[in-house]
Amino acid sequence: MQSKINKGNFFEDFSIGQEIIHPLPRTISDGDVAFYIALTGSRFALHSSDKVARDFGYEKRPIDDMLMFHLTFGKSVQDISLNAIANLGYSEVLFKTPVYVGDTVSMRSSVIGLKENSNGKSGVVYVHSIGHNQFDQEVLNMKRWVMVHKRNASQMSGINSVPSLLKSAPINELSIPKITQINSSDTGGGYFFDDYEVGERLNHPEGITIDESDHTLATKLYQNNAKVHFDAHMMQSSPMGRRLMYGGHVISIARSLSFNGLQNAMWIYAINGGVHANPTFGGDTIYAYTEILEKIEVNRDDVGLLRVRTVGAKNQPSCEIASPKNEDGKYHSNIVLDLDYTLIVPKSTLKEF
Amino acid sequence: MQSKINKGNFFEDFSIGQEIIHPLPRTISDGDVAFYIALTGSRFALHSSDKVARDFGYEKRPIDDMLMFHLTFGKSVQDISLNAIANLGYSEVLFKTPVYVGDTVSMRSSVIGLKENSNGKSGVVYVHSIGHNQFDQEVLNMKRWVMVHKRNASQMSGINSVPSLLKSAPINELSIPKITQINSSDTGGGYFFDDYEVGERLNHPEGITIDESDHTLATKLYQNNAKVHFDAHMMQSSPMGRRLMYGGHVISIARSLSFNGLQNAMWIYAINGGVHANPTFGGDTIYAYTEILEKIEVNRDDVGLLRVRTVGAKNQPSCEIASPKNEDGKYHSNIVLDLDYTLIVPKSTLKEF
Amino acid sequence: MQSKINKGNFFEDFSIGQEIIHPLPRTISDGDVAFYIALTGSRFALHSSDKVARDFGYEKRPIDDMLMFHLTFGKSVQDISLNAIANLGYSEVLFKTPVYVGDTVSMRSSVIGLKENSNGKSGVVYVHSIGHNQFDQEVLNMKRWVMVHKRNASQMSGINSVPSLLKSAPINELSIPKITQINSSDTGGGYFFDDYEVGERLNHPEGITIDESDHTLATKLYQNNAKVHFDAHMMQSSPMGRRLMYGGHVISIARSLSFNGLQNAMWIYAINGGVHANPTFGGDTIYAYTEILEKIEVNRDDVGLLRVRTVGAKNQPSCEIASPKNEDGKYHSNIVLDLDYTLIVPKSTLKEF
Repeated sequence: MQSKINKGNFFEDFSIGQEIIHPLPRTISDGDVAFYIALTGSRFALHSSDKVARDFGYEKRPIDDMLMFHLTFGKSVQDISLNAIANLGYSEVLFKTPVYVGDTVSMRSSVIGLKENSNGKSGVVYVHSIGHNQFDQEVLNMKRWVMVHKRNASQMSGINSVPSLLKSAPINELSIPKITQINSSDTGGGYFFDDYEVGERLNHPEGITIDESDHTLATKLYQNNAKVHFDAHMMQSSPMGRRLMYGGHVISIARSLSFNGLQNAMWIYAINGGVHANPTFGGDTIYAYTEILEKIEVNRDDVGLLRVRTVGAKNQPSCEIASPKNEDGKYHSNIVLDLDYTLIVPKSTLKEF
Repeated sequence: MQSKINKGNFFEDFSIGQEIIHPLPRTISDGDVAFYIALTGSRFALHSSDKVARDFGYEKRPIDDMLMFHLTFGKSVQDISLNAIANLGYSEVLFKTPVYVGDTVSMRSSVIGLKENSNGKSGVVYVHSIGHNQFDQEVLNMKRWVMVHKRNASQMSGINSVPSLLKSAPINELSIPKITQINSSDTGGGYFFDDYEVGERLNHPEGITIDESDHTLATKLYQNNAKVHFDAHMMQSSPMGRRLMYGGHVISIARSLSFNGLQNAMWIYAINGGVHANPTFGGDTIYAYTEILEKIEVNRDDVGLLRVRTVGAKNQPSCEIASPKNEDGKYHSNIVLDLDYTLIVPKSTLKEF
Repeated sequence: MQSKINKGNFFEDFSIGQEIIHPLPRTISDGDVAFYIALTGSRFALHSSDKVARDFGYEKRPIDDMLMFHLTFGKSVQDISLNAIANLGYSEVLFKTPVYVGDTVSMRSSVIGLKENSNGKSGVVYVHSIGHNQFDQEVLNMKRWVMVHKRNASQMSGINSVPSLLKSAPINELSIPKITQINSSDTGGGYFFDDYEVGERLNHPEGITIDESDHTLATKLYQNNAKVHFDAHMMQSSPMGRRLMYGGHVISIARSLSFNGLQNAMWIYAINGGVHANPTFGGDTIYAYTEILEKIEVNRDDVGLLRVRTVGAKNQPSCEIASPKNEDGKYHSNIVLDLDYTLIVPKSTLKEF
């Protein structure tokens, strides 16, 4: 009898053009939202307060973009990356439609590239994944690529089809309502799109220590079942020797830390790319700084886009980090995140007081 | 003045036929549901998705059976087992009515047996407990027996009245709606009632490490106030030397692990019996395997019952466990759970795609 | 360019009469409520059960007073106490209006006193803070004083304006509905206002161990961003050597422990004052006892007020504590809390059974 255990897909199981419907649609609840705040300390006003959300033209507070990302992305782990050796990258990650408590999110993917490694043991799988809500509206649209084990190292297929990927997400129509006012006394932030300058660096002063329970609760909440995150017994005999923190949790912590300096940047427009430069473990304290890379005017007089780079480090305050890389261009051992993303930021003309 | 502190009941405080209304009715919320997912990593589609629940004929997603069990059962600890030396067993644990967010659950018990131990220091109390919702519908119906300290070892009553208990829960009408379709692309599972065979064994491949915060958050969430679970100072001077994990949490973790192989077995019909063979502590990694014991046809063409045995182990992957017991019939020291229970499983005739 | 990082206020930034609107209004959810139960093990029936709340004349269960306190108070940390050397005290903390899931709470403060320390390095700031809901009804009204760093030690202002503060909160009209019945079989408590005597001491028998994740999840949930609570890397080089637990969490744990003996004391009328006598750290087990200080009759025949003192200790059961202070009038090193507060307690005439 065939085993009924789902062992995930191996490199040979993927083919270009293949469509995968990821199971387990997830209804998002107020409990998920409370968890996100407790796990990250996130304070962006739009996601904490119905009052602020209504002032902005929403019916009620929408879900934090990264919480939606984790809950939606988590669906794809079982099919795409359960046997991943490494999550190599992501690009063109677009946040498309506000998501609310009560919405049900799902994800589907198509395979857009395959590249067998010359050692025969593994290959890289490129997927285009679309998250959608219960009305089949796109909420997330992203590409990612992972290195996956082959089932059989001796049989070479020679496949080498790498898709072209954009270095930055395309600028489309924004999905957020027209903002008419913004109160610093609500959001906690006195700086607006016009106040930031390209090249400016914000050293976020806080640090957050992440204990084992914190990141494993997060990963289980997201129903992300990649074993490396929550099987300490198995990881004891791995080169790392212990559970590895889900990289998405590190992004969320860095995003939460960026509040101090970017209080009014309440929406992520897109993630353009990112590197998890070193692993993060339970007990590490995360710090972050942000550089303003680019200011982008869109067809809106209420908001503009700030393309930024947030660098996350472990156990080193942001003000002590001169550069994330050494002279050879390699990341310092305490750098855990180098994220290139684009924020939607209100203009100071909206400022109430 | 009499002390106002509730010290729980001792063996002498119980009498055959005694009725106990357990205080503290609990209204179940979306927060409890999010906690259950974060604490256990549970992924059964029925409890995660309103969409799937509606496809099955529910108004919205019902509470996971084990979450309902913990919240209801927790009510009885103060009165029945606060002074327990050991929770000896349970049987005929029936899950009777779906429970939803917003429902309020309570429990009442009647004493159905008493057996004084010959050492005079303790005795066994047998109770029949009924959990109900705010409409006084039964949601849980169970028997259990616990060894409880006597207040006074020198006074012997000689009581020896042991009730007869069934080895497996009786098969009654099922409380779940008539299921008309099931999509593997929703539930993540391609196997149905007809696919399983008696004697088949499923080695669930994942393991979950439980840290101290995880199990103590669970026990506090359930308002289960048995001190052994969350008073580390007191436990330091106990033979165990540390906090003991609530056995119900181990059941929930094992149930969550069983998802991989039993994805469509979304309902627990009954728990027939179970043994917590060894204690589980913070830091242990739980693994589980399941054996199919019996296939039971009921008066339904949409679903059948699978009686199964799930064995939970600590710090040993399920594929490495030949048998839970050694040649003398004793459990190996790493076996923490041996659970006999009955699942409701859809038939393959419902399969959509 | 001026730094956009909010470094909090220093002593020189405050002036008598200054009004501060604390940002980040917070909408309270069912997730927050579940977290509060999981983090504290709280069991007071009014906050756990819609049924009990309706019996008391509420539409549904109100938020636990201390949860409301933390969520509201947390708003003021960024502006008042981010640079605090010590939270010196609080008084006249009044709980004014029931708060429910879905309500949005905010806080504003006025500076009512300033006293520069003679060393020139710091000063004490006294504030009167008012928490309110989305209808601008007062939910919390309190005074507190904190010692704050000066920006510039060499410049002395000589300011010395200390407000007069009451030793106990004034007795106003109660905000709770008229209670017409109370069932011990719901609340778990058989003692009422008339049963308690001044001078009586209740040794709460349970202890709760708080792990690092527990108190840091709490502090992040409350969006309280005082670094000492969650930056272990920074705290390593502090005299304490590790993260310090938020004092409010210790109050909540002690309040939760007081359930056993005060089951029917479901409302906090006011906190009159309190001392965090020693720091609490992850891994400590908290115990508590309560003394009845005063019985106060108000203009109600359904309820009375009990003024009580709850003493919290770490790693020492309450029955082993003879007195919180030694002969010199200093707190023993294991005493962590000495709280003077006033509870609303139903009278036995309401008792149903």
